[in-house]
Amino acid sequence: VNAPVAAILITGNELVGGRTRDLNGPLVAASLSESGFEVRHLDFVPDDAALIEAALRRLLDEEPALIVTSGGLGTTHDDLTVDAVARATGLPLVEHVEALAFVEAATRRVAARRRLPYDDLLSRTRSQAVLPEGAEIVAPAGLAPGFLLRAGATTLCVLPGVPAEVRVMWPQALETIASRLALSRHERLVVRTYGAGEIQIQPLLDAATLDRLSVGITAAEGEVAVVASYDDHDALARAQARALELILKAGSPVFSDDGSTIDEIVAGWLRGRGQTLAVAESCTGGALGARLTDLAGSSDYFVGGIVSYDNAAKTGLLRVPADTLEQRGAVSTEVASAMAAGARAVMGATYGIGITGVAGPGGGTPDKPVGLVYIACSSSERTQVEEHRFPGDRASVRAWATTAALHLLRQALI
Amino acid sequence: VNAPVAAILITGNELVGGRTRDLNGPLVAASLSESGFEVRHLDFVPDDAALIEAALRRLLDEEPALIVTSGGLGTTHDDLTVDAVARATGLPLVEHVEALAFVEAATRRVAARRRLPYDDLLSRTRSQAVLPEGAEIVAPAGLAPGFLLRAGATTLCVLPGVPAEVRVMWPQALETIASRLALSRHERLVVRTYGAGEIQIQPLLDAATLDRLSVGITAAEGEVAVVASYDDHDALARAQARALELILKAGSPVFSDDGSTIDEIVAGWLRGRGQTLAVAESCTGGALGARLTDLAGSSDYFVGGIVSYDNAAKTGLLRVPADTLEQRGAVSTEVASAMAAGARAVMGATYGIGITGVAGPGGGTPDKPVGLVYIACSSSERTQVEEHRFPGDRASVRAWATTAALHLLRQALI
Repeated sequence: VNAPVAAILITGNELVGGRTRDLNGPLVAASLSESGFEVRHLDFVPDDAALIEAALRRLLDEEPALIVTSGGLGTTHDDLTVDAVARATGLPLVEHVEALAFVEAATRRVAARRRLPYDDLLSRTRSQAVLPEGAEIVAPAGLAPGFLLRAGATTLCVLPGVPAEVRVMWPQALETIASRLALSRHERLVVRTYGAGEIQIQPLLDAATLDRLSVGITAAEGEVAVVASYDDHDALARAQARALELILKAGSPVFSDDGSTIDEIVAGWLRGRGQTLAVAESCTGGALGARLTDLAGSSDYFVGGIVSYDNAAKTGLLRVPADTLEQRGAVSTEVASAMAAGARAVMGATYGIGITGVAGPGGGTPDKPVGLVYIACSSSERTQVEEHRFPGDRASVRAWATTAALHLLRQALI
Repeated sequence: VNAPVAAILITGNELVGGRTRDLNGPLVAASLSESGFEVRHLDFVPDDAALIEAALRRLLDEEPALIVTSGGLGTTHDDLTVDAVARATGLPLVEHVEALAFVEAATRRVAARRRLPYDDLLSRTRSQAVLPEGAEIVAPAGLAPGFLLRAGATTLCVLPGVPAEVRVMWPQALETIASRLALSRHERLVVRTYGAGEIQIQPLLDAATLDRLSVGITAAEGEVAVVASYDDHDALARAQARALELILKAGSPVFSDDGSTIDEIVAGWLRGRGQTLAVAESCTGGALGARLTDLAGSSDYFVGGIVSYDNAAKTGLLRVPADTLEQRGAVSTEVASAMAAGARAVMGATYGIGITGVAGPGGGTPDKPVGLVYIACSSSERTQVEEHRFPGDRASVRAWATTAALHLLRQALI
């Protein structure tokens, strides 16, 4: 497995301070892995000139094929990356004509939108065209251009920190990078299971021969994913990957063998059949609807939802019988079923899902503790209900519940 | 500013591979910053024994007061952290009696839940009690105990990778660590603005004297946050922080000066007044409801929501007039207002919010491009509507829209 090595360096006080969740690391790392790179480092440092330079020097010392940085471009006092790159590579800074053209165009747009004088604004934005000599410009999605730079055996790719800008600029940069490196074709086997623990999956891995594969195992919200990377030109590696897939399928509850997520699977099935879905959420507060509509084109099968956070919404909008609520309580098999059936009927969908539970931290009782969640799926033929006791805190219970709901829907769709 | 230095090292192929979003880094980093540490590194490495050991050695070389690791404890083949810590510190591995007691108790629970033979399972879990000599056990929240370890001037805190376990174990470990270090009291000024760009806020920072402060500026979804850390025992630093706060308040649209988020502000106001909120969401698909109910106790003021993803839900559940929908289109001032008023009326709430827009990537037209979103807030007195053109892709448009909705609600509450 001789994949080219990549490292990612992300700067920002807000990231090492834990105030902002990073979105760029996962995005860049995932596409690097898919392109056949081995990502060895994903490092975050504060907005500190000396620390950024030291981190760059340390990564350059390892001579990876690629270093991608994100953050610290722009015009505020904590935008320090360009200087750090120049010092770490020993290259002088010069104003780039192409970069200046981009900066001028972007400045004109911002000046118009915010009704600020252009010349005044340009005097503050112009510094973004000053980049290390030899830099190859990556067109900006916002104000700041990015760039590619050779430093010995390493290509540096320097990007801004705003995630929406990175999502536009990074794929363009990666295309250029990938076209220049002769990337050996790396394949990935991704097998996802639901309903068994990591401790039950590991013995299956122990039983397989894996020496030509790089294997990882990850558990989250009841799912366990086994990911094996290998060189597609290596026939023995391919055979080991195939054997691993068969062993996992024989010994564990596999629901996906092609990398697709549970979200993509149920979306694909609903769309393929022209069926629709409506949801009724209590403890998840809309998170299932939000997750379903994360996928573009979800309006093809998702008709809508009702967040019945209090009981009046359950009886009024979802037609849950008031005496059921009173006798069984809002967190019960009966109410979950009635919510699922209600969502389906009220919104005229093929399937209805109902979720009701105790997400915590308050509201638990000995009978109905925090983590107890009922999930129902209703169709014209039948209504299935499941009782779950999810681990962890409020965020954990809510995340497990939306995942479990998608798996219950998958079973109904089979 | 001589805060003790901390570094965080997180292991996991799934994290450097970008397949899983890390939750532990932000959690640990935020509480370290709040406790007065300066976080200099947040590094991710794959599940590779040599890389983990090298990263530990490099961080130990810098002699920080604290290194926190997360991941790689447990019983699967990629659980390599304990060995790496032993090698990097030169300490022998021994079975710890206290750790074994924890492992036995946890194994008993798992055996019962999954109906597996206890002895069999213990033979696989027992290795988790083998830890470096001198380790001080952190009680496990799942199967794997964590531990604290002294290595020269540095304290190592070794935690598992499962976020729900870290959320329980880390606060206990931090309490022990903080009680032993004489932490100088670090204060933080956090000022949040909404409606101005970073490029408009920076001149205010340039006008202030900041040499005793460590200042960061972050923009996201229309909000700009300025964070200044300083030593509370330094009178000059306190004065600079106070002056900075006044300059920002005079020159920019500040909505928070005590660290509270827009989510916490509207939640506090609604709760304090005994008022309630209902939402009607189209393009956000439930994300606003999910965000509102992220906060524990949100049932005090959030009554529920309707996700009217298709038009039938808008007319049927929210009573949006069909001719308004037809004449103005689903993405229009009139429909947003009708949705807000409908949510309020149908669910009997003090305030109703309506969101309708084009999240993309498809569905845009020259008249109604991707990013166009109408947001309305309705009370018994009036209905306010705003037209927005949010930047970026689907995820970005949806995130900006929920943030904008909370700010519109705040204005209605003033």
